[in-house]
Amino acid sequence: MTITVVGSVAYDTIETPAGKRERCLGGAATYFSLSASFFTDVRVIAVVGEDFGKRQEAVFQARNIDTRGIEHTAGKSFFWEGSYLDNLNEAKTHNTELNVFASFNPKIPDAYRDSEFLFLANIDPVLQRRVREAMPQAKLVAGDTMNYWIKDHRPALLEVLKGLDILLINDTETKMLAGNNNLVQAARAVMALGPKALVVKHGEYGATLFHGSSPRGENAGRAFRAPAMPLEEVVDPTGAGDSFAGGFFGYLASQPEQSPAAFRHAMFYGSVMGSFACERFGTERMQKLTRPEIDERFNLFRELTHLA
Amino acid sequence: MTITVVGSVAYDTIETPAGKRERCLGGAATYFSLSASFFTDVRVIAVVGEDFGKRQEAVFQARNIDTRGIEHTAGKSFFWEGSYLDNLNEAKTHNTELNVFASFNPKIPDAYRDSEFLFLANIDPVLQRRVREAMPQAKLVAGDTMNYWIKDHRPALLEVLKGLDILLINDTETKMLAGNNNLVQAARAVMALGPKALVVKHGEYGATLFHGSSPRGENAGRAFRAPAMPLEEVVDPTGAGDSFAGGFFGYLASQPEQSPAAFRHAMFYGSVMGSFACERFGTERMQKLTRPEIDERFNLFRELTHLA
Repeated sequence: MTITVVGSVAYDTIETPAGKRERCLGGAATYFSLSASFFTDVRVIAVVGEDFGKRQEAVFQARNIDTRGIEHTAGKSFFWEGSYLDNLNEAKTHNTELNVFASFNPKIPDAYRDSEFLFLANIDPVLQRRVREAMPQAKLVAGDTMNYWIKDHRPALLEVLKGLDILLINDTETKMLAGNNNLVQAARAVMALGPKALVVKHGEYGATLFHGSSPRGENAGRAFRAPAMPLEEVVDPTGAGDSFAGGFFGYLASQPEQSPAAFRHAMFYGSVMGSFACERFGTERMQKLTRPEIDERFNLFRELTHLA
Repeated sequence: MTITVVGSVAYDTIETPAGKRERCLGGAATYFSLSASFFTDVRVIAVVGEDFGKRQEAVFQARNIDTRGIEHTAGKSFFWEGSYLDNLNEAKTHNTELNVFASFNPKIPDAYRDSEFLFLANIDPVLQRRVREAMPQAKLVAGDTMNYWIKDHRPALLEVLKGLDILLINDTETKMLAGNNNLVQAARAVMALGPKALVVKHGEYGATLFHGSSPRGENAGRAFRAPAMPLEEVVDPTGAGDSFAGGFFGYLASQPEQSPAAFRHAMFYGSVMGSFACERFGTERMQKLTRPEIDERFNLFRELTHLA
């Protein structure tokens, strides 16, 4: 099954303890689609400026990603500058230039309209909702968001949540969205807002899938926890969450059925892809990745967590 | 196999968002031995004051814990007062009264001298070392420590580490001890100081066992990650780490062989016991716990983490 993803394609200037890179190709839709492309066909909806050229286009083409939904317009592409000098788990933003993204109005190519899987990457919830409504055929819709939209655009975000099957967010965002400091209670409160499943990302500690309430009334509800890789060196965490989402949703879309077992495997593939993303700056690792490497790491994750 | 544990038996006054308890029975050796007693025979070395009476003694006796090594002396028992009002993952200490603990000089009953498993709970490393040296027959020695000893008693602590098979500490302590902010690198550095295995506790995110370096040169080294239970309500996290240690070491001591598989199961039992400890104030949950409940939760942890 194909996935259509809407989100940012951008340039990032990133500084980490491992070094600095100026204007690497980035953006949530970029990381998501590169990651998901190892599992299924991916179509991108985004907007870029005149600074997005053949070299950037080639990164998508090398992974057979459909870029007909990337609109080219006058001006400069979205630009973000940040650093992780004190804390590899949290970016410090130095500069955000929306540029062509400021007036982004997603245009959906007719050829995309049969996508049964839709991913709404972290953008203005007004746009997320517009795309969701324009693609009523999507049978599984997942999305991401961030603290900014939770704090200052709550009504629009709540509308998006109503139409989501799966929401992927981190611990802090889950608690902020629910106004509750207990993760299990917060997860349940967020799921009451719409999403049938919630993937809470814990950074270096992995991620937890919450889906439904427990038939046994257990504290855990129905939960599944995937580990993260204990990494010797995190070169650049930018895009790790989007790469997680790409592995998670890409694997789900590749399966004949979205069974509980498929969700568990999807959590592992998400963690696997997130771990690769951190190993090099920007999309460097994703561009050189191979499917055998993914499978090998999947097996390592299994060894890391399974009793036998 | 029996375990001998040396550490504190104390009274705690604890405030959490769930309420407040005055002077509950506590201390690292108390939590450790109650937890380990579900797996093997436990012998305690500690010191208490005149405020430790029959009612407290009965808590140990109900679990068949050997208390002949608990020295009764004039004065008051160790007392700690703390709260977790802002953050359930980190206690804020309001008061510490060493009392009889200030002049604690561990006395080891002759009947304890055949213990092949020795646990050095979080006390002055000078005392940990003294006990370790007085029990040369111990074939597996594990220990705990805390930021205070790492910062201000480093030389004494380094001597203890040389004689440890397994060190159990948390993330922050691992990084502090190694002077390295990357957990994998820090774990390797700490293991170079003596311990053959390291259990790093991540609070609500579980724990990672590091043991040896990888034969394949993989980033992860040889690691195993056990989850923590996503808990609906954490009533009181006091003693969760010591209960983890009790489940972990108690299970290991109960096995005919300390194989890699035994270590993996021990990590799960550690997490299981830590999760129970948080459910009620002080030792309340440990006192009412049954082995079938432990096994049931072990199975839940397996479901929580295993692909199939």
